Amino acid sequence: MMSKEETNKNNNMLTGMTHECGVFGCIAAGDWPTHIDVAQVICLGLVALQHRGQESAGIVTSEGNNAKNFHVKKGMGMINNIFNDESIRQLKGSLGVGHTRYSTSAASEEVNCQPFVVHTAHGVLCVAHNGEIINKEKLRRKVLERGVGLSTHSDSELITQALCLNPPDGERNGVDWPARIRHLMSLSPLSYSLVLMEKDRIYGVRDPYGNRPLCIGKILPLNCKDENVGEEGWVISSESCGFLSIGARYVREVYPGEIVELSRTGIKTISTVERPDNKPPAFCIFEYVYFARSDSVFEGQMVYSVRMQCGRELAKEACIEADIVSSVPESGTAAAHGFSRQSGIPFAEVLCKNRYVGRTFIQPSARLRQLGVAKKFGALSENVAGKRLILIDDSIVRGNTIGPIIKLLRDAGATEVHVRIASPPLHYPCYMGINIPTREELIANKLDNVQLAKHTGADSLAYLSVEGLKIAVRRQLVPREKDGVGHCTACLTGEYPTELDW
Amino acid sequence: MMSKEETNKNNNMLTGMTHECGVFGCIAAGDWPTHIDVAQVICLGLVALQHRGQESAGIVTSEGNNAKNFHVKKGMGMINNIFNDESIRQLKGSLGVGHTRYSTSAASEEVNCQPFVVHTAHGVLCVAHNGEIINKEKLRRKVLERGVGLSTHSDSELITQALCLNPPDGERNGVDWPARIRHLMSLSPLSYSLVLMEKDRIYGVRDPYGNRPLCIGKILPLNCKDENVGEEGWVISSESCGFLSIGARYVREVYPGEIVELSRTGIKTISTVERPDNKPPAFCIFEYVYFARSDSVFEGQMVYSVRMQCGRELAKEACIEADIVSSVPESGTAAAHGFSRQSGIPFAEVLCKNRYVGRTFIQPSARLRQLGVAKKFGALSENVAGKRLILIDDSIVRGNTIGPIIKLLRDAGATEVHVRIASPPLHYPCYMGINIPTREELIANKLDNVQLAKHTGADSLAYLSVEGLKIAVRRQLVPREKDGVGHCTACLTGEYPTELDW
Amino acid sequence: MMSKEETNKNNNMLTGMTHECGVFGCIAAGDWPTHIDVAQVICLGLVALQHRGQESAGIVTSEGNNAKNFHVKKGMGMINNIFNDESIRQLKGSLGVGHTRYSTSAASEEVNCQPFVVHTAHGVLCVAHNGEIINKEKLRRKVLERGVGLSTHSDSELITQALCLNPPDGERNGVDWPARIRHLMSLSPLSYSLVLMEKDRIYGVRDPYGNRPLCIGKILPLNCKDENVGEEGWVISSESCGFLSIGARYVREVYPGEIVELSRTGIKTISTVERPDNKPPAFCIFEYVYFARSDSVFEGQMVYSVRMQCGRELAKEACIEADIVSSVPESGTAAAHGFSRQSGIPFAEVLCKNRYVGRTFIQPSARLRQLGVAKKFGALSENVAGKRLILIDDSIVRGNTIGPIIKLLRDAGATEVHVRIASPPLHYPCYMGINIPTREELIANKLDNVQLAKHTGADSLAYLSVEGLKIAVRRQLVPREKDGVGHCTACLTGEYPTELDW
Amino acid sequence: MMSKEETNKNNNMLTGMTHECGVFGCIAAGDWPTHIDVAQVICLGLVALQHRGQESAGIVTSEGNNAKNFHVKKGMGMINNIFNDESIRQLKGSLGVGHTRYSTSAASEEVNCQPFVVHTAHGVLCVAHNGEIINKEKLRRKVLERGVGLSTHSDSELITQALCLNPPDGERNGVDWPARIRHLMSLSPLSYSLVLMEKDRIYGVRDPYGNRPLCIGKILPLNCKDENVGEEGWVISSESCGFLSIGARYVREVYPGEIVELSRTGIKTISTVERPDNKPPAFCIFEYVYFARSDSVFEGQMVYSVRMQCGRELAKEACIEADIVSSVPESGTAAAHGFSRQSGIPFAEVLCKNRYVGRTFIQPSARLRQLGVAKKFGALSENVAGKRLILIDDSIVRGNTIGPIIKLLRDAGATEVHVRIASPPLHYPCYMGINIPTREELIANKLDNVQLAKHTGADSLAYLSVEGLKIAVRRQLVPREKDGVGHCTACLTGEYPTELDW
Repeated sequence: MMSKEETNKNNNMLTGMTHECGVFGCIAAGDWPTHIDVAQVICLGLVALQHRGQESAGIVTSEGNNAKNFHVKKGMGMINNIFNDESIRQLKGSLGVGHTRYSTSAASEEVNCQPFVVHTAHGVLCVAHNGEIINKEKLRRKVLERGVGLSTHSDSELITQALCLNPPDGERNGVDWPARIRHLMSLSPLSYSLVLMEKDRIYGVRDPYGNRPLCIGKILPLNCKDENVGEEGWVISSESCGFLSIGARYVREVYPGEIVELSRTGIKTISTVERPDNKPPAFCIFEYVYFARSDSVFEGQMVYSVRMQCGRELAKEACIEADIVSSVPESGTAAAHGFSRQSGIPFAEVLCKNRYVGRTFIQPSARLRQLGVAKKFGALSENVAGKRLILIDDSIVRGNTIGPIIKLLRDAGATEVHVRIASPPLHYPCYMGINIPTREELIANKLDNVQLAKHTGADSLAYLSVEGLKIAVRRQLVPREKDGVGHCTACLTGEYPTELDW
Repeated sequence: MMSKEETNKNNNMLTGMTHECGVFGCIAAGDWPTHIDVAQVICLGLVALQHRGQESAGIVTSEGNNAKNFHVKKGMGMINNIFNDESIRQLKGSLGVGHTRYSTSAASEEVNCQPFVVHTAHGVLCVAHNGEIINKEKLRRKVLERGVGLSTHSDSELITQALCLNPPDGERNGVDWPARIRHLMSLSPLSYSLVLMEKDRIYGVRDPYGNRPLCIGKILPLNCKDENVGEEGWVISSESCGFLSIGARYVREVYPGEIVELSRTGIKTISTVERPDNKPPAFCIFEYVYFARSDSVFEGQMVYSVRMQCGRELAKEACIEADIVSSVPESGTAAAHGFSRQSGIPFAEVLCKNRYVGRTFIQPSARLRQLGVAKKFGALSENVAGKRLILIDDSIVRGNTIGPIIKLLRDAGATEVHVRIASPPLHYPCYMGINIPTREELIANKLDNVQLAKHTGADSLAYLSVEGLKIAVRRQLVPREKDGVGHCTACLTGEYPTELDW
Repeated sequence: MMSKEETNKNNNMLTGMTHECGVFGCIAAGDWPTHIDVAQVICLGLVALQHRGQESAGIVTSEGNNAKNFHVKKGMGMINNIFNDESIRQLKGSLGVGHTRYSTSAASEEVNCQPFVVHTAHGVLCVAHNGEIINKEKLRRKVLERGVGLSTHSDSELITQALCLNPPDGERNGVDWPARIRHLMSLSPLSYSLVLMEKDRIYGVRDPYGNRPLCIGKILPLNCKDENVGEEGWVISSESCGFLSIGARYVREVYPGEIVELSRTGIKTISTVERPDNKPPAFCIFEYVYFARSDSVFEGQMVYSVRMQCGRELAKEACIEADIVSSVPESGTAAAHGFSRQSGIPFAEVLCKNRYVGRTFIQPSARLRQLGVAKKFGALSENVAGKRLILIDDSIVRGNTIGPIIKLLRDAGATEVHVRIASPPLHYPCYMGINIPTREELIANKLDNVQLAKHTGADSLAYLSVEGLKIAVRRQLVPREKDGVGHCTACLTGEYPTELDW
Repeated sequence: MMSKEETNKNNNMLTGMTHECGVFGCIAAGDWPTHIDVAQVICLGLVALQHRGQESAGIVTSEGNNAKNFHVKKGMGMINNIFNDESIRQLKGSLGVGHTRYSTSAASEEVNCQPFVVHTAHGVLCVAHNGEIINKEKLRRKVLERGVGLSTHSDSELITQALCLNPPDGERNGVDWPARIRHLMSLSPLSYSLVLMEKDRIYGVRDPYGNRPLCIGKILPLNCKDENVGEEGWVISSESCGFLSIGARYVREVYPGEIVELSRTGIKTISTVERPDNKPPAFCIFEYVYFARSDSVFEGQMVYSVRMQCGRELAKEACIEADIVSSVPESGTAAAHGFSRQSGIPFAEVLCKNRYVGRTFIQPSARLRQLGVAKKFGALSENVAGKRLILIDDSIVRGNTIGPIIKLLRDAGATEVHVRIASPPLHYPCYMGINIPTREELIANKLDNVQLAKHTGADSLAYLSVEGLKIAVRRQLVPREKDGVGHCTACLTGEYPTELDW
C-alpha cells in the first residue's frame, strides 16, 4: 500500500490536483413499475459528475421491497465506456445509487470501484462515498478488532463494515440504520458525503463539518410548470449541475451533519449531528475555485458567479495597465470576464485549445523539450501581436504548465504578459479528500511572486489574497446564511477544521 | 461499396458535417543524422490537425538516399492511441509524411489508412491526400484499363497508382515525378492537397482551384531571433495551427496549382498548373466557417478574426434588442464576440460544456427523450435568468442540436432566445471532400427561418447572408490578393467551381 | 444470485461437467533472498493445474516476517494471459499461494478471483479454496450475525471472514490460526482443500472426509540424487502432476482432516480432525474418472493406471466381438489401452482431433445441424473402413457429443460401432464442489443402455458398473490403506458421505 | 523488409517449422438462393485447415452474376476469433473462397491477410494462395515495370496484379482469365496452389510441379447414399481433412499443372500445363511427414497410414531391444504404433500433454532453466519406471525440445531412452513455401547421431533414411500412379526440383 504522500505523488504527476469522486442517488415515487427509468437517470447524473472522477464508476439498483439482491454494474474507465443499453436495461429497479471515482495510479483496480455492496444480517447494503475519513486508521483498527477482515484500503469498504457491526448495546427492534450512521458520525466526523441504499430507501449523509457537497433535487412530471404538483421522484447528488439534463429541479443542499432519508413517499430529515466543537461549517473552498462544474450551485450561489467575483476581487487587488484581459481556457475564463468588467480592460480570447491532446504520450525530443511550447494550445496571433496581456488562470499548483503558454504568447507577438491567479497560493496538504502534491512540489512553497514570474517568463505575477477569496465566496450569501457559513481554507492557510490526529 | 449519398448518410448521423483529412510533411536540412526528430515533429503536427480527422492516422518516414524502404506506422483511432515512444523511435529518417483521416462508418478499415505506400519500378512512393477527386470514376477507369488492380475505393490509392503508370510517351531520363504529377493534374484538376514522398524529397501539391488548404513553414534553430539564419528543416501542412508548437514559422501558402519540392537544401517551386478556365481560385469557404482551427491562417488572415467578422456582419444584418449576446461553446464564441462588439450588447457565457460527454451511448428512455434537454451542456442559470438572449452558433446542418439547448436555457429562466447563425444556410451537397448530409436532411431545405425558429423553440432565428459571409472573408485581404482570390460557395449557392461530370 | 441448480445449468451447457479449482502453495527454505523463485514456481504449478479451472487465476506472495502487505496479482482468463515477466517480478517473496478457478457464467467476475486476501487485526491473511462448503448457508448466517458484511457469495470469502471472527472464548496469547481453523472444521466438515497464508507460513488443510485432493512435495537442490540432502523449499498442490516440471519430488498426500504447516524450516502436522462419524474417508471417485490429470498420483496410484484398469474391468464386464478397440481422444485412451490388453482386440486410433476448434462459435445452418458431424474430430478412414469398432470414452454426461462422433465413423466406413463407457452412469447431483447438470439433463436418468445406443446411433452401449469402478480404484492400494480408504460415489449411487442439511 | 533468412529466423524461434497457409473454396449448385450456406461451409473448412496457419484468416463471397462487389471479412488471429454469427450472415453469396495464414513475426499485419481482392477493368478478382513464387523477384520486376505499384511484399498481391496486367497481344473477346493464368504459370511454374474467384466462378490452380496440395470434393444432399444423385455444391481445399465435417465427399486431387473451373453447373478441367522439364511431379514430402492433418488423403493414401508406415520402416532400419515403444504425443504417435507393430515391442503412453501450455510466456528463472524439464508434458511414471523406452517423434528441427522430454522421463524412472525419428535429418532450406530455420540452426547440420544422442541425453538416436521415407510414401500407390509420382525431398537431400535462379 502506498502512503498518502506517495499516492499524492503519483496522482499529481500529470494533473496538478485531483478531484475526489461524485455520488448520486435516485428514487422513484410510488409503486413499481415507476414512471422514471432510475438507472438511466443515475447514468446521466454520473455523466454530469464525470469531472469529479474518471477512473471508474458504478451503479447499483434495487427493485425495492421485493429485492433479494441488488443489480450491480461497475467498471474501470469513463461512464460511457462502462454502461451501454444492455447494462442499463439490466439495472432494473425503482431506486439506486451511483458513483464516479477519481483517477489514481495507486490501487486503481476493479475491486476498488464503488458503490460498495455487502450482504448483511439485515439485508443488502450499498455505500457510495465522497471524501476522506480523517481518522481512518483509528476506525480501521476498531473494525479489525471486532473480527472483520478488510479486503481493501478504501474508505467505502471501511464505512460499510463499520455500519455492519452490531452496536455494542444491541438493537431492540431490528436493525436501526440511522442510529448506526449516527454512531459512525460520532466516531468519524470528517469528511464524507455518503449515499447509502438498503432495499427500499436511500440515506444521504453529510459530515457535521459540511466539508464535501451534497444536494437534493426533485423530478416533476414532464412539462409541468406547477411546482405544487406531486413529484415523480427525487435525486441526491454531489453537485446540482446535472439536474436540468435529467428533468430535475434543485431543492436544497443536505445540511452539514444531516441524515436525510429518500423513500418512495418523499424526502425526510432523520436527524442532524452537530459539529463536535459547534463552530460554523467548513465547506471546502476549493470546490468553488477549482473542482465544481461552473453551473453547480453551492450555498445558494452559482459557482460561475463566484469565479467571476474572484476575478473582480483580483482586479481590485492587482490590476496593471494592459491592452486586453484574457484567460487560460477554460479554467480561467469566468474570472477573466470578472476581471475585465471590474478593470474596464477589454476581454479577448488569445488561446485556442486543442481538444484532442491526451495525456502526454511521447517523450519529447531534446529540441522540443527545450522549445517548451504548450502543444495543448494554439495562439490567436492577430489578437495577441503587439498587445500587453493580462492572463488569468484559476490556480497554480506545480507551476509547470503556465510557462510554455507564456512562451507561446510571446512567440505570437505579445509584448507583455502579466499573470493573475484567481485564487491564493497553495501551501498545505489536504486530509479531507483532495490530492494535493507534496509540500515540496507546490510551487508556492518554493518561489515567491517575483521569482515565479521570472521562472515562468511572465512580466509580473500575482495571486488573489485569501481575504479576497473569502469576500468573493461570501458576497452573495444572505445575512442569515453568512453567519452560519464557514469554509475550509486549510490548503491555503494551514488552518485545519479539526485536529489531525483524531 | 456505398454510393456517395449513402456514405454521407452514415457519416452525418451524429456529427452534421465531417472534415476531410489533414496532411503533414517534414524534411530536415543537411545530412543525417539531422538535428530534428522528424517523426516527432510529424506526430505533433498531426495532433494539431486532429480536428480534421479522428478515424485513423499514419506516419511514413525515409532515411533519405540510402533508403530501400520506408518506415511505416498506421492505425485506427486517435494519434495518441496509435503512436508511442517505441513507434516514434522506429520511424527513423530525415524526412517523412503523415496523415490523419476523418471518421466515417463506411470503409472504416485499416486498409484505408493513409499515407498510402507502394513499391514502384522507380523506388518507393508515398502519398497523403486531403480532398476528393471530382472525376474519380473516369480516372479510375483509366487506371483499371491500363491493367492495374485497385484494392480499395480510396482516392489516395487511385492517385498513387495513377502516378505509377508509365507515361504514354515514355520518360527519357528515368522517372520524372513532377511531370507525372502535372499529367495527373491535367486529368483531374480538383480537389486535392497532396503530400508525396519519394526517398529523398517531398512534393507538395495543391489543386489548380486551390480548393483545399496547404501551407509551408520553416524550422529555425532554437531561440533564434534572426530570421536570416539558416533553417534546420521545413514543414508542409494542411493548416498552420500547429507550427508554433513544433518550433516552426509560417512561410506562405502553397499556391493553387503549385507543385513545390522540399529537399534537404530547401523549398523550390517546380511548376504551377493553371485552372483550366483561368478563373480565380475556389478555396473552400467552409474552412473559415467550420473546419479549420481558429488559430490557423489562410490567405493572410487568421480564421478566428474571420469568424469574429462574421459575427460583426451578422450584427449588421440581423440584430435585435436583447440583454446579452452569447454562444454555443465553443463553435460560436468568436462570432459572438464580434456580434457583441458590433452591436454593443454585452457578451456573457450562458452554457457550460460537459467535456466528458461522448457520442450518444445509451438510448434515452421515453421520458428523457421527451425531456429533450442537451446533456452535453449545463446552463449558467444566474447569467440567464430573466434575460433576453441572442445565441450565436457557427452553422446549422440538420438542426437537431439547437432545440435542446434552447429548451435548457428557457428552463434556466431565459425570457427570450434569439438564434443567430454566423453562416448562410446549407442547401447543396459538396463533391470536393466534405461530407454534407443529403439534401433532404439539410434543415434549410425543409424549413425557412420562421419555421425553423418555431421548430427549435427560438423566439427568432436568422442566418448570415452569403454576401455578408463574403465580406467577412475578404475584409482583410490586401487589394492585390482580393482580385486574385475566390472562394467556393457551392454548398451555399449551388455554384460549383467546375462542371460535375468531368 | 443463482441457485445451485441454475448455476449448474449454465455451466454445463457446453462442457458436461466442470472442475472445481486448483490450489497451490510454495515456501522457500531459509532466509531471504532465497534460492527459489517462488512466484515462478507457483505460476508453473498453476499451469499444471490449469485443467482444474480456466476462468480466472491469482497468485499472492509474501516477503515473510517483514511483510506488511502481500503482493497480489489476479485476473480473468488463463494463466498465461494473466501473468507475464513483469507481474512475476513484482510478486516478490519467499512464500506464496496460487489458485486457478473453474469456468462458470454465473458470477464470473474479477471480484471472485482467488486467492482471497484480507487485512485482519492480526496481519494479512490469504485463502485459496477448492471444494464447496456443504452447509454454507448456515455458516454464512453465523458470520453475518456477528456483524460482518459479505461482498460476494464465494466460499472463499466466507471461509476467510469466518477465520477472522474473534473466537467466542478469546485467545490468551494472540491469534491462534490453527485453533481457528479447527473451529471452522467443526462448523463445516465438508468439502475443502485449503491453502492459507499468513505472513511467514502456509497452512494446508484437507477436510475430515478427504473429499478433495491435496498433496505435498519438496524441492531438492538441482541435480541432487541424494534424498537426504536438505530441501530448498516445499510445495503443496491439489495434484502432483506439475511437480517434476518445477523440480519437486512428491512426498505424500495431506491426510483427511489434517492441518499441515509449511514454514521456512519445513513441514509439520499441526493436528488432525476426525470425520464426525469416524467412518473411512470419502475421496471423490470422479477425480480418478474424469477430473485429474492422468499423471497425478492419488492414494499411491497413478491416475492413468486406474483409468487403464477401468478399461480392463470394462472389458471383463462388457466385451463384444470386434476388429479394433479405439477411443475418443484423449479422454478415453487410457481405458481403451486397458480394454485392448484385457480383451486381446488390437488398439488403433480412429479419430484425429482438431486442436484448434474452440467453443462453438457460429450457429450452424440448418443443413449443418442436420448433418450433425463433429467438427472437433476427423476420422482416420483407412483405419475405420470396413471395421467393427469398440469405442471407449471415460464418461457420458448429457450424451450429446458421442452421437456425431459415431456418425462420423460410420461415414468413414465403420460397419459396427460399440460404445463402452469406462465409468458408471451419472444419476445424482454433487454438493461437494462439482458442477453436474441437473437430474433431468443427465442422459442416464432419461435413457437406459438400449435406448441410449439407439439415440446415439451406436450398435450397442454399456457402462462400467459401480462395483467395477471400485475394483479398479482399489486394485493397487496396499492392504493397510485399503481398509482406511473410502470413496465418495454420491453422483453414481446417491449415497452422500453426510447429511445434506447440516 | 526482412530477407527470407531473417524471416525464417524469426518464425522458427519457437516452433521449429511453420506451415504455409491453407486455401478453400466453395460454390453452390444452381440458382440463388442456394441450399448451401456457403460462408459457413468455408468457415468450417478453414477451421479444419487451421493447422496450416494461425496468424490470420479471411473469407470472401460473391452473390454470383449480379455481384458488383464481393463481401469481405478478414482479420488477425484464429478463425473463431475473426468470425461470428454476424460476420457469417453478412458474407452472403453462392460462392466464396477462404484462406488461413501461417504465423510469422515479419509483416504480420492486417494488410497481408488473404484472400487478396482487387477491382479490375473486368470486374472484381479474388486470390488465395498457398506456396511461394520461386522467382518472385523476377516476376515482381515485370509487374513493376508495367507501371503498377505494389503495396506489400506478399506473393498473393503479386499474383493478383500479374493477372490484372493486359496481355501483350491483347484479348479479342474480353478478358480470358484461364489464358492469363496459363501465362502466369509459364512465367512462374513453382510453387502454388491457388483458388481464384471472379464473380460467378472459382478457378483452382496447382503448379506444374504439384508441389503444394489441392483437392476437390462434392456436397451431396443430406443423408443421400446414392452417389449418382445431383450434387448441391463443390468444394476445393488444400486438404481433404474437413470434408466429412461439412458433408462433402472427396472427389480427387487437382492434378499438377491443372486449371480447374468450379461453376454452378459443376467442375471442369480447363487445361493442364506441363512441368517445363516433363519430369514427374515434385509433391512436398514433408506434407506427409509433418504438415498435413493425419486424416487427410494425398495421392490416394491417408497421411496417418503413411506415418504409421514410416514407423514400420524405422523399425526395420533401427530397432533396438527395449520394453516399450512410445511417442511424443501427438506428433509421433502414428509412427510409434507402426514401429510397435513391426517390432513387436508393446506400445504404451509415457507422456501426458498439458493442453493449456501456451507459447513460452515467462522467462524461466536460472534454476528452472537449469532444471530444463518440459512443462508442456507430464510423465506417466508407473508406465516409465524401470523401463527401457524407445521414444518416437516425427522430426527433429532445432533439437531443443527433445532433451527436456528425455530428462523428464529419466526423472520418472526410465532406465534407457532411445530416440527414433520417423523422418530423415533436415539439412537444406526450402524455397517453396516452408519456413525452415537457417542451415546453422538445423541441428542435423551440427551434430551427427551419436553427438545428438549425447547432447539430448538419449541412450541412442536414429533417423529414418531418405530411402525408407520414400518406401513409406510410395508403398500404397498403385503402379500406374507410382510411375508418374515424384516427391520433392529438397530439404533432406538438397535436390531441388528446379534451378533456383529462375
